[in-house]
Order: sequence, then C-alpha cells, then structure tokens
Amino acid sequence: MIYPSDSLHEECGIFGIAAPPGANIDPALDTFLGLFALQHRGQEACGIAVNNAGVITCRKNNGLLMEVFNEKILESMPGDSAIGHVRYSTAGGGSVENAQPIAVSHIKGNLALAHNGNLVNAGELRREIELKGGIFHSTSDSEIIAYTIVKERLKSKSIEEAVQRTMHQIKGAYCLLAMSPRKMIAARDPNGFRPLSIGMLGENYIFASESCAIDAVGGKFLRDVEPGEIIIVENGNFTSMDSGLRSERSFCSFEFIYFARPDSIIEGISVEHARRKMGAALARESGVEADIVCAVPDSGLSAAAGYAEASGLPNVVGLIKNRYIGRTFIQPSQGQRELEVRMKLNPMSENIRGKRIVLIDDSVVRGTTSARIVSALREAGAKEVHLRSSAPPFRFPCYFGTDVPDQEKLIAVGRSEAEIATFLGANSVAFLRHETLYEILAADGCKSCTGCFSGDYPIELPKETDAHFAFKPIMYINNH
Amino acid sequence: MIYPSDSLHEECGIFGIAAPPGANIDPALDTFLGLFALQHRGQEACGIAVNNAGVITCRKNNGLLMEVFNEKILESMPGDSAIGHVRYSTAGGGSVENAQPIAVSHIKGNLALAHNGNLVNAGELRREIELKGGIFHSTSDSEIIAYTIVKERLKSKSIEEAVQRTMHQIKGAYCLLAMSPRKMIAARDPNGFRPLSIGMLGENYIFASESCAIDAVGGKFLRDVEPGEIIIVENGNFTSMDSGLRSERSFCSFEFIYFARPDSIIEGISVEHARRKMGAALARESGVEADIVCAVPDSGLSAAAGYAEASGLPNVVGLIKNRYIGRTFIQPSQGQRELEVRMKLNPMSENIRGKRIVLIDDSVVRGTTSARIVSALREAGAKEVHLRSSAPPFRFPCYFGTDVPDQEKLIAVGRSEAEIATFLGANSVAFLRHETLYEILAADGCKSCTGCFSGDYPIELPKETDAHFAFKPIMYINNH
Amino acid sequence: MIYPSDSLHEECGIFGIAAPPGANIDPALDTFLGLFALQHRGQEACGIAVNNAGVITCRKNNGLLMEVFNEKILESMPGDSAIGHVRYSTAGGGSVENAQPIAVSHIKGNLALAHNGNLVNAGELRREIELKGGIFHSTSDSEIIAYTIVKERLKSKSIEEAVQRTMHQIKGAYCLLAMSPRKMIAARDPNGFRPLSIGMLGENYIFASESCAIDAVGGKFLRDVEPGEIIIVENGNFTSMDSGLRSERSFCSFEFIYFARPDSIIEGISVEHARRKMGAALARESGVEADIVCAVPDSGLSAAAGYAEASGLPNVVGLIKNRYIGRTFIQPSQGQRELEVRMKLNPMSENIRGKRIVLIDDSVVRGTTSARIVSALREAGAKEVHLRSSAPPFRFPCYFGTDVPDQEKLIAVGRSEAEIATFLGANSVAFLRHETLYEILAADGCKSCTGCFSGDYPIELPKETDAHFAFKPIMYINNH
Amino acid sequence: MIYPSDSLHEECGIFGIAAPPGANIDPALDTFLGLFALQHRGQEACGIAVNNAGVITCRKNNGLLMEVFNEKILESMPGDSAIGHVRYSTAGGGSVENAQPIAVSHIKGNLALAHNGNLVNAGELRREIELKGGIFHSTSDSEIIAYTIVKERLKSKSIEEAVQRTMHQIKGAYCLLAMSPRKMIAARDPNGFRPLSIGMLGENYIFASESCAIDAVGGKFLRDVEPGEIIIVENGNFTSMDSGLRSERSFCSFEFIYFARPDSIIEGISVEHARRKMGAALARESGVEADIVCAVPDSGLSAAAGYAEASGLPNVVGLIKNRYIGRTFIQPSQGQRELEVRMKLNPMSENIRGKRIVLIDDSVVRGTTSARIVSALREAGAKEVHLRSSAPPFRFPCYFGTDVPDQEKLIAVGRSEAEIATFLGANSVAFLRHETLYEILAADGCKSCTGCFSGDYPIELPKETDAHFAFKPIMYINNH
Repeated sequence: MIYPSDSLHEECGIFGIAAPPGANIDPALDTFLGLFALQHRGQEACGIAVNNAGVITCRKNNGLLMEVFNEKILESMPGDSAIGHVRYSTAGGGSVENAQPIAVSHIKGNLALAHNGNLVNAGELRREIELKGGIFHSTSDSEIIAYTIVKERLKSKSIEEAVQRTMHQIKGAYCLLAMSPRKMIAARDPNGFRPLSIGMLGENYIFASESCAIDAVGGKFLRDVEPGEIIIVENGNFTSMDSGLRSERSFCSFEFIYFARPDSIIEGISVEHARRKMGAALARESGVEADIVCAVPDSGLSAAAGYAEASGLPNVVGLIKNRYIGRTFIQPSQGQRELEVRMKLNPMSENIRGKRIVLIDDSVVRGTTSARIVSALREAGAKEVHLRSSAPPFRFPCYFGTDVPDQEKLIAVGRSEAEIATFLGANSVAFLRHETLYEILAADGCKSCTGCFSGDYPIELPKETDAHFAFKPIMYINNH
Repeated sequence: MIYPSDSLHEECGIFGIAAPPGANIDPALDTFLGLFALQHRGQEACGIAVNNAGVITCRKNNGLLMEVFNEKILESMPGDSAIGHVRYSTAGGGSVENAQPIAVSHIKGNLALAHNGNLVNAGELRREIELKGGIFHSTSDSEIIAYTIVKERLKSKSIEEAVQRTMHQIKGAYCLLAMSPRKMIAARDPNGFRPLSIGMLGENYIFASESCAIDAVGGKFLRDVEPGEIIIVENGNFTSMDSGLRSERSFCSFEFIYFARPDSIIEGISVEHARRKMGAALARESGVEADIVCAVPDSGLSAAAGYAEASGLPNVVGLIKNRYIGRTFIQPSQGQRELEVRMKLNPMSENIRGKRIVLIDDSVVRGTTSARIVSALREAGAKEVHLRSSAPPFRFPCYFGTDVPDQEKLIAVGRSEAEIATFLGANSVAFLRHETLYEILAADGCKSCTGCFSGDYPIELPKETDAHFAFKPIMYINNH
Repeated sequence: MIYPSDSLHEECGIFGIAAPPGANIDPALDTFLGLFALQHRGQEACGIAVNNAGVITCRKNNGLLMEVFNEKILESMPGDSAIGHVRYSTAGGGSVENAQPIAVSHIKGNLALAHNGNLVNAGELRREIELKGGIFHSTSDSEIIAYTIVKERLKSKSIEEAVQRTMHQIKGAYCLLAMSPRKMIAARDPNGFRPLSIGMLGENYIFASESCAIDAVGGKFLRDVEPGEIIIVENGNFTSMDSGLRSERSFCSFEFIYFARPDSIIEGISVEHARRKMGAALARESGVEADIVCAVPDSGLSAAAGYAEASGLPNVVGLIKNRYIGRTFIQPSQGQRELEVRMKLNPMSENIRGKRIVLIDDSVVRGTTSARIVSALREAGAKEVHLRSSAPPFRFPCYFGTDVPDQEKLIAVGRSEAEIATFLGANSVAFLRHETLYEILAADGCKSCTGCFSGDYPIELPKETDAHFAFKPIMYINNH
Repeated sequence: MIYPSDSLHEECGIFGIAAPPGANIDPALDTFLGLFALQHRGQEACGIAVNNAGVITCRKNNGLLMEVFNEKILESMPGDSAIGHVRYSTAGGGSVENAQPIAVSHIKGNLALAHNGNLVNAGELRREIELKGGIFHSTSDSEIIAYTIVKERLKSKSIEEAVQRTMHQIKGAYCLLAMSPRKMIAARDPNGFRPLSIGMLGENYIFASESCAIDAVGGKFLRDVEPGEIIIVENGNFTSMDSGLRSERSFCSFEFIYFARPDSIIEGISVEHARRKMGAALARESGVEADIVCAVPDSGLSAAAGYAEASGLPNVVGLIKNRYIGRTFIQPSQGQRELEVRMKLNPMSENIRGKRIVLIDDSVVRGTTSARIVSALREAGAKEVHLRSSAPPFRFPCYFGTDVPDQEKLIAVGRSEAEIATFLGANSVAFLRHETLYEILAADGCKSCTGCFSGDYPIELPKETDAHFAFKPIMYINNH
C-alpha cells in the first residue's frame, strides 16, 4: 500500500512462530509469509531471526520483504522457531543498524528480540545502562529493552521472569517477541496500546501484530495477548503469566482508522466494520448535500462505504490509484510533489464531472496532499468538493509509536474547519469528533487512546521524553 | 496490478512525445511517466528510445519501469522526442532481445520503433526477408516491421510513405510509433484492434495506448488515432495521412473488459462506464437471489458496482488484496499455487459469514484461481457463492494480441455453465453473452471484435499463422 | 592485468570448442575457462554462445567474465559446442550491443559469430548491405560479416562455402569462429594479422586466440590456423579448406611486444622468449651505463630480464604493483590521474635509492604515465632514470585492430628521443628500432606487420577506411 | 593478490588519518586509498568510519574496497578524521557483524574502533563483561575492547587514560585505532606483534599497518608506533604516552615472510630485503644442483631473487599467474581444486622443459597446492623439481593473529623433509630453519616471534584460550 505522503505512519509489525524442537516446519518461510501480510505496517526495513537448537541466524536489511529475502535465503535458515519484524522509520532513524530483530549473546546464551511500540522512558533507561558501561550500536528502543532483559536475567530464574522484571521498568507502548534458545516469550504493555494476536498453525503457536497475518499462513486466530500479559511457549507448551502491572486499557484509535488492514480483527472488532461506522458517523455529524461519495483510495474506502450507506448517496470511484508505485526514485523534495500525486492518483472525470462530491479520506494531517487531490478533482470537472476525514484533527504529539509531525506542520493546529477548507480549496471540510471516535470503539468494548487528537494521554509522561536523543548519533550508511 | 494467474494478458503499451528540436522538454522523463501509467499493460520488459538531433539513445531491459530506469539514467537521455514501450510476453518469448523499442540504423539514418499488437502474416514476411539475406536478432514482429519499413524507405520519398507502403503488407493488429531523425510517425491498423490516443502537452504532441497516460503527464486528450490513419509530427507540425486501407472497425472487446485502466477513455467510451454496464447486464441476464455482491479485486470492481446498482444488492468488500505482491519469488510451479492465492487475497470473514454472495470477476479462463477463491470464501463462512464473469466464455484463439491459453486449458471449452459451477465448487456460474457484450459497446458507437469468445474474426486469417515460429529460436539469457 | 593508461590496446580474444552431438562435455564451462585465460585481451565485455542441437543460447554483457557469468548461469547453458569472446572497445563503441558473440537467425537456421580483428572495407560493405534494405543493430564489424555470410549462404551449398565467399569480400584483419546448428567454422585472414590456435581436449577440437587458453582447459596445442585457412569441425571430424586467398604473412608485431600472454606460443615462437630478445636487443642497441635494470610491471618484465642478461646488470624490483586494481571508480578525468598511478604502482625505495636505473617498459605511447613513473622513481631516490621501450615509437595508425591514439597524442610524432627524454624527465630514452623488431621475429620464422611504427602496411588500404562511421550512431545504454 | 589456498593468512589491516577540525581534507578518500594499499591484508570485509565534529558515520560490509565503496559513497562521508579496516576472517567468523570499524555510543559520546590482532584472554574478558549484563552483537575481539575502554572511561579523566587502563587488561597481539569525538588514539601491544606505522600527510597524522599505505596517500613515513606506546592526536597535536607495560619485543616473523607487501618498511627493515636474505639463506643451507630458480608468483618472487643471486643460478619465470582471479565462484569444494590451480597458474613450458628447477615458495602449509604445482611443472617438462620454502615448517598454533590450520592438516607435523618431498612428488624439499629466520631478522635489529614454527611463545598463554568460543554463535547472513 502506498500512502499519500500526507498521511501518518505508525511503527512496525511483528510476527513469531514457535514449534517444539524437531517439528517439521519451516519457520523462516512462515515468518516471511506472516510479515508479508504485515508489510503495510512498515516498508523501510525487515528481518527474520531463526532459532535452530539454540543457534540464532538473523538476516535483516533496509528494503521490502521481497527485496531482502528470497527462496534461497529462506531455505538457508532452517530451525524450530522464528521471529520477524517489518519497520517504518521515523525521521533520522533510517539506519540499517536500527533494523530488527536484534540478536545478541549474553552470559546465559543468545537472545533475539522484535519490538513494536515506543518507550517513554527510553532516555532514562539508556543513561542508566551507559552509566554502568553499556555501549550502544543503534538508537532503537529494542537495544535498551534487550539490555534490560539481560541485566534482569542475571537475577532471575528464567527468561520469562527477566521479561516480567523488565516490564516493571520500561514505560510506554510495547509489544515484544523474545526468542531464547528454548523459549519464545510474547509480552504486551499494560495499556495495550498496540495490537498483538495469538494463533495456531497445527500444533504450533503464532504471534502476530494483526490477525490477517495468522490468516496468511493458514493459521487459526485464538485471541489477543492481553494488556500486561506474558506468554511463554516452550517445547510446544503454552503458558500465560501475569506481569502484575495494571493500567486502564487504551488501545491506539488510529490503528482502527488507518494503520491496520481492514480484514484484521483487533480487540474483538472488525477493522472494516469500525471504519464503516466512522463513515456513517461522519454522515450523521457533518452530512452535506451532495451527488456522490468518493473515497481517497485505499485508506478511505471503508469509511466511504459507511458514509454512502448512511447518507443514501451513491458511492462512486472518483480516483484511480496506480498500483505500481513503490519507493519512487523521483523525489518530491525536488520540486515535484505535484508529480508524485499525479503518478499515484488519477481522477475519473467521467464519474465526477459536474458532480458535488463528498470526498472521504482516512485523515488530513499536513493538508498538502489533500489540497492537490481537491485541485485535481476540480480540474477534472467536480462542481463541489466536501472533504470528510474519519480521523479527528491531529493537534498533539503521540508518545506511543505514531509518527505525528511537529505541531507547526499540522493543518488543524490553530485553524478552524472553515479555514482548513479555504486552505485546501474545498467547499467544506469536517473531521470526525474525537469523542465520537472514542464512543464508536467503546460501544464495541474497546477503550482507546485518542491522545494525538485530544491531548489526553492515558499514562503520565516523563519530563524529558526525548532525553535519549541527546547523544550524537552514530550513523550507519547502508549498502545500497 | 497483480493479475490472478488465471487471467488473460494482452500485449504491450506504447507512448511517444514529439517536440520541435531545441524545445525545452525532458522527453525521457515524460515517456517514463506515461509508460508508468501504462505499466498494467506489460510488466515483463520496458524501454525508452530518445532522439537527440538524429542520434538515438535506447535503453531497455527486462523488469518494471522502476527497476530499469532511475533519475540518473533518465537525465543521461536528453533529446527532442522519445518513444517507449512496456511489454507483456507470451510464453517462450521472454528474452531481453525482444524488448522494445528496437533501434536500428539503415541507409537513410536511424529508426526506432515501438509496436503493440500482433501480425497474422509475420511468418510469411519474415521468410521473404530471410530469402533476400535478412538476419534476425529477435523473434518479435517489430523487427519484421522495421525491416519492411527500411526496405520500403529505399523506394519512397519519405519515412511516412515507407510506413504507408508497409501497412499495405503487414496484416493483423498493430499500433506503431516510429521515430526517425526528424519525424515521429504514429499508425494504426485499418481494423483498429488496439487503442492509440493522441494528446498535447503544451505545444508538443503525445501518443499513448490509453488516455490515462496522457493525464499522467499533465497533457490534454485530443482524439484517438483512427483505424488506418498515419500521423506525422515534424518540427512541431501535425499531419494526418490516409493509408488508403479500409476495413470494418473491430476494436478488441477484451480491452474494455479487463486490460485498459478504468480511468481511460477509449473509442469515446469510458472504460469504467462500459464495465458497469457489463455488470448491470449480468444482473439482468443471470441475476440470482443473494445477500451481497463482492468483486474479485481489482479487475472485478467496476462490474460489481454495476451489478449491485442494477440488482439493488449491497456491494461489499469480500476479499482484501495484498498491495505488496510483485513478481513473487515463491513459484507456484513448486506446488504452492495455493500459497500464491493466499498471499494475494484474504477473505473478509466479517462481511461474508452466512451470506449468499454474487462474486464478480472480470473473466474465468482456466478456472484454477476462481476455484481457490470460491473455496476460500466458503472456508470464511459464505453460505452460497454465485460466480458471474463480465467476460463471455473464452473458447477460441486470439490472433490479434491477446494471450489466450490453448483450448484444452480453457474451462469453458466443452463445459456447460452448470458443469463449470461444479468444477469450481460454486453454486452457480454465469458469463456475459458475447452478443450482449457486442451490443453494449456498439450502443456507444464502438464495433468490436469478439473473436476469442465467438470464433468470428473480422479479417481472414492466413493458413499458417505460426509459420514464423518454425525456425529454431535463439535464446538470449538476460543479465539478472 | 591492469594496463597503465598510457598503453595501447588491441581488440578481443576468441575461444571455441566443438564436440559431436551427445558428447559428455560442458562447453560453456570450458569456454568460460578458456576466455578467462584470454581476459587480458579484453575487459570491457564478454559473451558465450552455446549450441544445443541447433538451438543457440547466447549470453553477453559489459563486464569481466567473473561479473557476467557464474556457475548457475553456466549450468543453464548445456550443449554440444560453444564459442566465446572477450572484448576491448575502442572509443565510442562501448555499447553492450557491440558485445559478442552475435547470434542471429536466417533462412537456413541459426548462426553465432565471434570475431577478432578489424576490417578495412567495413564501411563499403555496410553500405552495400544497407542499399539492399539491411538494418543494423550495432556498429560492429561482426554484424557486417554475419550479413555477408548469410547472403552468401543463399548461393552456397554449405556454411563453409559461404564463409569462403565472404573471405573474398572482406578485407583486413580477422579471426572468425562461426557456429551453425551442425558445424563450427574457424577462419583467418590471408595475412594472418591476428593469432588463432587449434587444440584438442580429448576428442574435441578447440580454437583459441592464444595457446595459453588451450592450456587453461587442460587441452593440447596442435598448431595455428594458417593465414587464409578455413577449418570445419562437424560431428567430431576436422577438415581444412583453402580459401584460395594468398597474401604475404604479416603477423602483428605488437602482439609479441605487449598483447599476448608470455606463456603463449604464437607462430611457433614463445612470447616470453621474443620479449627477452627484444630486451637484449635494447641492451645492444641503446645500452647505457647504469647500476640496475627495473621493469614496469607486468608488461616490461620479460624484456627487462633480457636486458639484464645481455647487459650483465642486476634485474631488480623497482616498482610494486597493486594487484587489486580493477576498473577503478576514481576517474582520472577528474584531475586525479596522478592518483591513478599512485594507486597502481609504488616505487621500492630500498632498491633504487641512489641508483642509476634502466627502466624497461613495453611501450611509450602518449608518455603521460611514463612521465609519472619517472617522477615517482626520482622522488624515491633514483639517481638517473634511462627509459627503454621494447616497442618502437608509435607514429602511424593501425588499421588492423590495434587501438593507436591519434597522431597528435603520440609522443614520438615529431619528437626526437632526446626531446622525449626531456618531456618525460628521464636522463635518456631509447626505443627498439622497428627494423630490429622485424628481424628478431623474422629470425624465428615470423614475418610481421610493423605498420604502426613504420607506416608500411602489408595491404592496400581503401580510400575511406572510416566510411562506416559516417552514419549517426545509435547508442545503447547498458543496464548498470 | 590471490593466495594459493595452501597459504596462511593473518588478520587485518588498519588505517587512520587525523586532522584538526575544519582542515581541508577528505579523510574518507584518504582512508580508502590507504586501505587499498593494504587490501592484501584482508579481502573479506572492509569499512571506514568518519568523524565529523563528533558525529561518526560508519560504512562497512563484506567485500573488497572496490565493491563496498564508490566515489559517491566516499563523497557522502565528509569529516575531520577517519579510521578504516580491511579484514581477513578465520573460519566461522565471516559474518558482516564482525566487520570493522565498530562504532558505538556510550555515556561520554561516540567511539569508533579498528583493531588488528588477537587477544589471548578474550574469553575471560567477555565473560566478565557478560556477568555484569553486557550484550554482544558480534564475536569479535573488537567489541570486547570497546566495552573495556568504555568501562574504564567511566573511571578515567580522558579517553587515552581509558585506553591505557584497557591495555593493562587485554593480553595478546593488538594494534588499535580509536576515534573519539575529538581525538584519535593509536596503541600497540607491549610485544609489538603486529606492525603499525606513523606518517604525515601535510600537517595531518596518519597511522597504517604498513608503510606502503602511507606512500599510497602521498604521505611521509615517520616511524613505527613502539610496542606499548599510546599516541594521541588532538586538534593537530601529537602526543606519545607510555602504557607502562614492558615486554620483550617479539614481532611476527611471518609478516616478513609472507604477509607484508615487499615495498613496506617494517621495524626499520625492508620487507623485500628480508625476503632476499631468506632466499639467500636457503641457497646456503639447502642448496641443490640445478639449472634454474623459479618463484611461485607472487609471494615467492623476492626469495627466489635472493636464492638466484646467492647460488648463481638464473632466475627464470616458470609460472604465469592469471591476474583476473578474484573470489572465483568455481568452488574447489566441488571437486575442482585442480581447476582452481589451473585457472591461477600456467607453467611456462619454454623456460622449464628439460630443466632441473629450484622452486621457491613463501611457505608450504597443507601441501595440496604445492603438490599440484609440482605436478604441473613436471607435465610441462621439468626434469627435477626441488621445492624450497622461505618459511620454516608450520607445526604449532598461532595465538596472535595468524590463521594456522589445525595440526592434522599441517604437512610438516610428523613428517621429515624427505617424506614431504615424496608426498608432494618433488625431488627434494627444504624449509628455512626457524633459528636462521630469527637470526636474519635479529641481525637487522628485529627480535621476532617464531611460535608457529618453534612452539616457543613470547608470552604465557591462558589455560583456555578459546573459552570465548564456548557460547553458541549468533550468525548474521549478509545481504549478498
């Protein structure tokens, strides 16, 4: 999926499969397939670590799965279990050294780790480790978590106890998969910010950021890892352990709006259905007289269907997306932003000429892409363009893994909907209210975090959240 | 766009832009962008030839545009005009030597040629050339056409006259772009089997297989090249010339069903609208009691919308397509065909559980992919699956550029719709009638060829259409 | 071998192996190994064509053998016989389209061709072909030869007769290997300008530009192909045929000076021994009082040994060559010529400090590299540097395959040895006399061409030797 | 240089250049050039780390310098100072994670480290670090050294004090280059096992494993870093510091025999001259009646010259080496060892036919390559082959960085010279005596380590030298 450059990105997808030693499975291939279904969660880097009787083989690099792996490589990675990771990088961290899983050796053996989320006390933890002589090869939270687990392992009877102790020290959003010579451990932060599902493939356990990855390997979805839960798979046996941490559930609402695949079931809710409800709510809250509803493909499709249904307006294809867009080498920074939109989206004049359009997008962040789309629709003959966003306006930072731009770049900071409409050249603009969003999800049993929209965060934030960026970064240039 | 392996492919897209010498344009970049919008017409190979004051620079290779070209390469190809080609290859012809454009030198200078279509008398023409000492570096029709143009050029006053004489010798389907040191020539066969549009970008003329490529470079669509028409652009001047060839228009109906992009206007008809009408016709002709309509993405989307509208049934997302599928290295030939479908499409259980589904696909050719999709929908809880194809059943070969499998592989040869339904595991199967298809297009003014469905071909076929495959092929292994 | 940029280059090496159908050999691997021993004859491009029961598979590209081929590729090219080519390109012709072998199909089947040499009437022949409608994909002589063979094949009973007729039309220097579905043909021009040896590997016949390639595959050297001789290998049988062309033997003397490998036997003469004799002759003709003899590695080594032996002076290592130099990406055109020499050669101060040196190089062409070497030796402490060249001074063009720079770039044009010494900063400079060179080779039975030194050419030259460069070249950009 | 597979390899070359901030130099390019002159010391991996005002950019990968770097990459690495590394890997450690320099961040900033040598107490140190919670990303000594420096940095006033404290803990052979935000530190173990030279380029200081690398950048050789010495370059100022460690100098004698380039000056001795003396000593100690002396190129060349001079026999080229051998893809493990030798070396029949040859090689380790060379010379007509090795027989392990095979693979373990001759098919075999080797170097002022020949090691070895290999290795598969 190619996201309009105006969109938000969250970080990472993870996948793991654990079989008893000697099981007749191909964990590298299964992890590849699972990650492939999670590729939308991160396109910058990827990696797979395989455990073969205690020896861990790890391959990772910048690039898509299809670029980093091939059949021959996967065949060269036999084993009993595997974990993998796809990564979206935030600005400045695009070094290959930050690719995951990370694989390290320590006094008790080897450890591979894949992590999705963002710690809010990473800087503080890093400083403590460094004050004891720790050295860092990367700028990722994962290396901090690995150090902490290893440090606690020295005082613990087991790796799971070390993970439990680690969870009492790290704060923020995290879903972890840790692979030791004999065990696979899955853990989720007590707020449950990010998704992590459990499935089975035959007798073997699977963990995946989204249930669509369980489908992709032909597995059966069991349930989500609970907030604060630790799961241990050893020798084919599944054990759940309580971290002892309690917090109010606050699942990221933006996962439902944009990041997850529509065919995933998260927190018991179909992502597709949640999006349709958002579209329907938009029709109720900010309906407008119009002729047709059009989605910005692909992320606005489900909400557009919901809007159309609720409003009774026809849902029409207004924009065609070029499916061959990859990481285009024609850099928008070279004054060709307009080119980028034109390469991705082409208006369907026949459908929109002379029409009053309700244009549904998943979100409007900076507004630059939206402005170009509105302008392209008008050139193609649209009479009116009313933009509706299924995400509430972004106004605040996210500390839990969503890459929200700085406030000065957010179109909704300091602007009314009418001012935004003027800015975008639209006849009207409306966003879903964050209270409505919360209610839609809560009605289906999911209490969510809407911090980036509302400014209300579910946990207390440390004073210096970015202290760990104070050091001068080592930059590794990758081999491309 | 990744086509289910069960689908048909036609061959090639072409694009050209011609400016007066010294015009301040970047023809290589424009051709890249135009071809990029035509990438769905061919993913195997691509190429661009640029004319810089008579010197032609040509780059081509197997691969997608994004793989064969980059910004640096495009910058190294300055010039006044350019032509380009994307290629889908039929079995056995996947050599890089068959990539286009072909660029040759002859007694009067240089010539670059891009061609979309299929000649029915290629073997005969090749034999004639070989009997006079001609040597062939490839197995493509384009080299035959180039030879013929060059041979006629010796007796002609101009390149356009040579093209005209050539058109009186070659038979079948062709859209040509020929670039000589001072001119660009576009030509289309007298039946107009394949599409070729004319546009303008500023003062410069554009030719493209589909109008969406004209949009992609920011150009204005003018009109189609007429069947049998020759167009000459020289020094910024546009001239139309009559080949003198007359034939009944017989545009490929399968272009409307599947191959063209929905946002293109072909023969004055919106592809999207034509597809909706096909879907509506299916509802009328073979409607069935059901709960929902689902498309096989992406090629069934427009027809599904038409069916839903006509039938009053809700149009629901039943299958999610993974957007990162490229040329996957996991080869279906390795007994993993099932894997391939699972990697591409995931059923949306929440939407289909317990439902009676009308499943709309653009076509059912071999039936293998359809069978897997039907089975996946059933596993995901569908109560009934009624498959409807907007293409009539394929029963005959195409001699004009569509890659129809051998008859023994075609599911509709020798099977009734009921037998096909049994074969696919569907509750019912129905195809659009070829007469209906013809009428839908004719009603909008386009007389079409339905030869592969009906067996009625618009022109007489030579006795040995494949005579030119009798020689032992030279195979070039490409450098990947 | 990395040649100082000041050196001359000749064009190409060829290799072929012919076995009866069904023979248990791996002709692609043998050709690879044979070409690998000939890599010094051309580093720009290479290719191998294999004949498998009439189907020819050809792979070629710009690059060294190790870059273009690997084990997997060679394994994918089974067959009965093969021909191969390594290519050094002259200015402007570095397109991949000019790589060899060329493989074409014609009315009688397929033909692959590898050619070493240079035709003097290529322009004329090309024009004739073009006047009959011929089209050219490259600017190489090989395509002209292929056309001519194919044209004559139409009137001949056999491919060998067509080759014979072709030899009566093409003029200049050529060694040919032609592979038809059932035969391999080797042919050499009547002057025998370039080398071509015959060997056997088991029951199979080998052809190679130099005997070292026969050694490299474990074969046995039989004899050279005679000037004007045509050899046919069919079904394991070897036949010699007389072209009927007679001319005075005039083997390229520069092959002995520089281009051939010292371990090759050419025209019955050991290259190493010929070089030693040149060195000894330099000592006799232009000896000088000195302390030591040093070679410019590697091409001056044999002559230096000969000089040392003849003069009684010690032969000492004065310059160390870096063995990892490949096609360095640090381009001398970027004002870093000095860098280039420094990367390649380092003076051995310990050996040369305070010494009067006789510095032996194979040739001094432009003088730029020599000047830098002299200067480096002086900086490293040399007291005197007396440069001796085993090649006579270059003063005239070569029409037979050696890439001699334009006269204005040749240091010896219009300068006395004393002036050259001043130019290079050497204490003295002397070249072998071209009469002496001729005598050295003639004494061992080889009459040679010294045209580039003396201006006396063994055959009459056409008026417009470069007529075939008059057309505007098509340039193909290669895929790197 | 391509080493016969029978040869020994030592590990690594290092290079560094330090300029004051703002100096107008290109440290990445200079380091590239310096490492290029050291490429013979390691061909498996390479890397460069550049310090740009405290920010370190590091690029490293498996491959030759020409493969890992290009002009564009070097240009993207501006800075004030740089260090680099070329690496030869011992069995099992060929992971890209072990490539150097390593670059880490710690509480005081960043640190890059390049290291040549081998610690004998690495296992012990690693265990200590791990017991305090340390995690390891690689299996290299360098990561252990980095950890130790960082740990000591916490208690030290300066990085140089931390290096000094580290030197009191690490044992074995090491030459270090450490780059902190403001300083470059060079250090050498108290025995001075491995070479490290100091040079100047303009006002800037250079460190290099061999003086030939100083020549390569146009610098001036100053002196060697003394055993136990620490050198600090800060802001253009050069300071020498005493580590306080004292030990008897024991420079690796095999550096002189084989590893160093002949144009380097090490420990005040010309490598070329030392090798000539070894050859002369062989003539004295084990001279034999013969006709000619031949070297195995390139490593036997200098000793052969010495033997020839001392014996009065002519020094003749007997084997020609193919200069295009790289890391050949034709794996000897595939039963083609013989092929490998044939691809590399071709006997010069003309020079050796009927001759009694003294064949000089730098060393005979396993004997497999030597056996093939002897056999090839006989096939080419040699009457007698007397093999002489300038290295004494290898009989013991090296703990200081030379990759000596296991004893069961060493031909000299448990065999007399006569038995070895029989094994190799030679008429006689003789090795230089290790006492003679020691004396040759001592006479020029260099006390050396001959442990691998004599079993006498200059420092006490820990009980379990390989304790650090006890953990299960994490393997990283590189991206090729």
